[in-house]
Amino acid sequence: MSSRRWQPIAAISRRPLGQTGAVQLVTLDDIRAAAELIRPYIVRTPLVPAGWADDERPLWIKPESLQQIGAFKVRGAFNAIANLDESVRTRGVVAYSSGNHAQAVAYAAAIYGVPAHIVMPRETPDIKVAATRSHGAEVVLCGAGEREKVAAQLVEQTGGILVPPFDHRDIIAGQGTIGLEIAEDLPDVATVLVPWGGGGLACGIATALREAAPQARILAAEVSTAAPYAASLAAGAPATVISAPSFVDGIGGPTVFADMFAHATELGIGSRVASVDEVGAAVRLLVERAKTVAEGAGATPVACALADRGNGTAQPKGPVVCVVSGGVIDLPKLVALLSGPDR
Amino acid sequence: MSSRRWQPIAAISRRPLGQTGAVQLVTLDDIRAAAELIRPYIVRTPLVPAGWADDERPLWIKPESLQQIGAFKVRGAFNAIANLDESVRTRGVVAYSSGNHAQAVAYAAAIYGVPAHIVMPRETPDIKVAATRSHGAEVVLCGAGEREKVAAQLVEQTGGILVPPFDHRDIIAGQGTIGLEIAEDLPDVATVLVPWGGGGLACGIATALREAAPQARILAAEVSTAAPYAASLAAGAPATVISAPSFVDGIGGPTVFADMFAHATELGIGSRVASVDEVGAAVRLLVERAKTVAEGAGATPVACALADRGNGTAQPKGPVVCVVSGGVIDLPKLVALLSGPDR
Repeated sequence: MSSRRWQPIAAISRRPLGQTGAVQLVTLDDIRAAAELIRPYIVRTPLVPAGWADDERPLWIKPESLQQIGAFKVRGAFNAIANLDESVRTRGVVAYSSGNHAQAVAYAAAIYGVPAHIVMPRETPDIKVAATRSHGAEVVLCGAGEREKVAAQLVEQTGGILVPPFDHRDIIAGQGTIGLEIAEDLPDVATVLVPWGGGGLACGIATALREAAPQARILAAEVSTAAPYAASLAAGAPATVISAPSFVDGIGGPTVFADMFAHATELGIGSRVASVDEVGAAVRLLVERAKTVAEGAGATPVACALADRGNGTAQPKGPVVCVVSGGVIDLPKLVALLSGPDR
Repeated sequence: MSSRRWQPIAAISRRPLGQTGAVQLVTLDDIRAAAELIRPYIVRTPLVPAGWADDERPLWIKPESLQQIGAFKVRGAFNAIANLDESVRTRGVVAYSSGNHAQAVAYAAAIYGVPAHIVMPRETPDIKVAATRSHGAEVVLCGAGEREKVAAQLVEQTGGILVPPFDHRDIIAGQGTIGLEIAEDLPDVATVLVPWGGGGLACGIATALREAAPQARILAAEVSTAAPYAASLAAGAPATVISAPSFVDGIGGPTVFADMFAHATELGIGSRVASVDEVGAAVRLLVERAKTVAEGAGATPVACALADRGNGTAQPKGPVVCVVSGGVIDLPKLVALLSGPDR
């Protein structure tokens, strides 16, 4: 353990609202309000029993892959946009993302009938650019490392509001509605495994469950090629890792944002890491046994749960929920994973 | 149209209960009672919006593939077994099936802790036999065309109760709970497309919707290689067709049971037929766009809905629901379908 100590969350939560990057502690009430606001627009996903679990730790899947855009990101995007004053919202929204957040903001803006400008890196796959445009958003392509700058310029030019990808309380509260649903469906849940991307999903779910199912432990699931939250926990402070590319995109950036780390440790979020091969096997298992298409990030919690079982470490008894965060995976990549263990 | 007239359902519904093959008209109350009984054991599947729909006919998927055994059959099996007197149920159950009904009865019997004997044709794929055994059922393999006879012998020997695959009011009422859920989630549904196998699923759903969403039209979806309901409607009486094998198993037997035809026509169930290629394309589309693994039968309603759109026939406006009845498909078969249009 490093002797470095991270700034406690209390200090962060006193920062003024609206300050860039400031994460306020989200409350259960925020999440309940989000659930009401977004209900008409999202799929209330069920818990799906995974027949391959062991009897003492029944395994459940929460397939957020079934959301309109194929991923949970619609929950936060709708909550953020719904919470804007109408006079502000009509000016439109701006977001930067190479992934599911882009489509989520574009989709939510279309439902609200407001303009959306989405900044995407030039190397974003055409299919994701096309999907974002299909919701009527204006896509602005930019060079590597420029997306935040370009987004800021668009905010300046259009008067639109920036919808950040995860580091905002409305986003975190929206994602947290998943935790409320888990507590409703399975009040005695013992363990919840959540993909760790930016941390908004894990923090939102942990906040909901801290009050709604306090016995549950929350584990952030990462892939070994890029596991900054595990490294940060080990270091006791936000750490940067060398992140190797793999088919598991959507999670595994090189760093953990300082505010998100503070939030996550305050919530007691633990850590699990699976290998790329284990994640690939989990993608296959989810198709075969749960009839669910998961992207690498979405399958990572299942990979971690199975690794926990396999490595003989004693785990608490009781129901396990794996949040399958999304299913946005290219067909050729999926076919390759389904075709065998050699990828 | 043939001049032959089919015996009206009124005559059939006066047959004594329990007579072999007799289908009593199921009521909405039967279905509501079934919903209460089976609630703890089934997945309350959501409606999933299909982004590829046209604006005037939004398309929704009901993914019954997410049920424990990968198919809707658990609903009817649980309702049938739950409705037995406990003194009768403890004697165990018997069923014959080469498909999802086998696993459904085995699974429900295991949950109730009663013995299950399942008769399966010797040519049933090993994977399905193994899945049925995995729930603790005793599988009895038999020769072609012998399964009903062997099941009757087992009933004689074990004192168990036969759980028929579709032609029983408890089965139909159980499957009908899908219709209740559709009406709850989408009260203004205009069209519901349902795979036609034995007819229990379509009749159950139509019964629920006749009262709970009376504006909805119900269409039985079949594949052109074996479409006995379409042929029967054209003939005005139960017809037998030459059924060519294809990857679309689970639906498409050669005949329509007389009682089921009477029930279905009484309920005004219409007909749609898709080609095998259209069904294959629908399997691919469901994976790509709805992140859902469907077997051929499960994808057939989507294939029919898309064919309706494509062929220029004017269809009523309003929401369309496609019941994706199951996702039990071998991985190599799925990979072949996902790999391209040439199968």
